[in-house]
Amino acid sequence: MNSKYKVKKFEKGRLENIEDLISIEEPLEISLKYKDKEKWVTKSLSITMRTPGHDKDLARGFLFNEQIIRDLKDIENIEIFGDKVGNYNIQNKILVTLNNAENINIAKIKRDFLTNSSCGVCGKSSLDALEVTKKEKTPKSNPKLSKDIIIRSPSTLRENQSEFAKTGGIHASGLFSSDGRLITLREDVGRHNALDKMIGDSLFNNYLQPNNQFITCSGRLNFELVQKVLMTNIGLMIGVGAPTSLAIDLANRFDMTLIGFVKEDSFNIYTNNQKVIVN
Amino acid sequence: MNSKYKVKKFEKGRLENIEDLISIEEPLEISLKYKDKEKWVTKSLSITMRTPGHDKDLARGFLFNEQIIRDLKDIENIEIFGDKVGNYNIQNKILVTLNNAENINIAKIKRDFLTNSSCGVCGKSSLDALEVTKKEKTPKSNPKLSKDIIIRSPSTLRENQSEFAKTGGIHASGLFSSDGRLITLREDVGRHNALDKMIGDSLFNNYLQPNNQFITCSGRLNFELVQKVLMTNIGLMIGVGAPTSLAIDLANRFDMTLIGFVKEDSFNIYTNNQKVIVN
Repeated sequence: MNSKYKVKKFEKGRLENIEDLISIEEPLEISLKYKDKEKWVTKSLSITMRTPGHDKDLARGFLFNEQIIRDLKDIENIEIFGDKVGNYNIQNKILVTLNNAENINIAKIKRDFLTNSSCGVCGKSSLDALEVTKKEKTPKSNPKLSKDIIIRSPSTLRENQSEFAKTGGIHASGLFSSDGRLITLREDVGRHNALDKMIGDSLFNNYLQPNNQFITCSGRLNFELVQKVLMTNIGLMIGVGAPTSLAIDLANRFDMTLIGFVKEDSFNIYTNNQKVIVN
Repeated sequence: MNSKYKVKKFEKGRLENIEDLISIEEPLEISLKYKDKEKWVTKSLSITMRTPGHDKDLARGFLFNEQIIRDLKDIENIEIFGDKVGNYNIQNKILVTLNNAENINIAKIKRDFLTNSSCGVCGKSSLDALEVTKKEKTPKSNPKLSKDIIIRSPSTLRENQSEFAKTGGIHASGLFSSDGRLITLREDVGRHNALDKMIGDSLFNNYLQPNNQFITCSGRLNFELVQKVLMTNIGLMIGVGAPTSLAIDLANRFDMTLIGFVKEDSFNIYTNNQKVIVN
């Protein structure tokens, strides 16, 4: 989603008035409704600055990746509501009603999100906290990719982005099969939202087949993005930019292959490199 | 701060083992100690994923930019503590003791940070919330810059980054005088942290003179970054990448000049463009 803005462009030594397409950023408040000791409770969980569109995918992916739900079956209903606000006349509130199933982590919701300060981006993020949740190493898929597929995946992503060519300012995450075919992609001004949306869409449409899939993200790779991919059990993640130390450490700990700095004829394999066959 | 990692690099058709410098990402928990109804209270405020180093600058800038404090005089003491953890043997907790001065916004702390979900990145970020705080338009500085200074500032920033050349994966924010001289810069894997650190440093060293200064940030410009710059009363902000819609809207509302997409011989002026003299 984008909008036209009047811009003064300096180019070739002179200023001119142009119209430019700008990626939209608007707050989205995600609230949960769930049963706590036989009583329905509604709580605000998080506010994220996102590009409007695919908001239900965002909520599904966010709740799954943050381990609030284990499965989309834990969601009874998702409702977008609120007054249409802002310059783009959109609704900025989403309410997710959870089934009162035992596998919904109510204790975690309350501890991590509602009493402590927290949000999608940083509130619960420590390696220790994650280790508690993932005590045993989950067996990860290890698809084997050719170097051409690795090098091509960021440009495949870019070519299929509906927004990037227009605005030049939006991130994307894509789910790929190991033969290099793009299965689905989502875009957002926030890297973490693009990934949440893409995983939410993949869950909803049953796209996930970790054994022969990988995920490619625009931009740099940090702890948060690796953590989200970890939840899908997909064992190979590619980023266009540099990873952080904690992204590498986390990938290492869970046997995930992390590839970064993908350029036209080069890339770096940061973890698990004995298992990637590059031919 | 960076660390050596073993990496398999694919280049010129073959794989080789190299050592690569990686930017460090570690959680930092910021806690506040303050007097509430004559009793000292300690509360965890936020956890942010940052590159260790200049943590006190980060805390100062974060508290100022989030309007928890109005002035560094509101801070009695800052203490870095906690066990030395992680691969880099660093301390990941910081405690800021506030003076019990009237101008400390205790109500805001409690409302925004402790009872509602919140963090440095997205918890309190809505245009409406900001409007309440900044009801009257603050008079902004409007330094006049030559086009050469605009175009040169991102490369000046990059040339002075100690970490970027090494890791290729770290953001920076710089304070510049309107003649193009770099006054201070800070780096971090998080854009928002780099800006908080730089503003924290500028407050501590009394660098801020809004009338003839501007701020340049690597990367794209979003709502959050513009909001932080707004707190300094500096009226001109430059980004290397694209702005979001909300970044432009916010800059417009407070008469801030926003310049983006700065390349070797071009840039875009998104707001307030009648006041920037480009010669």
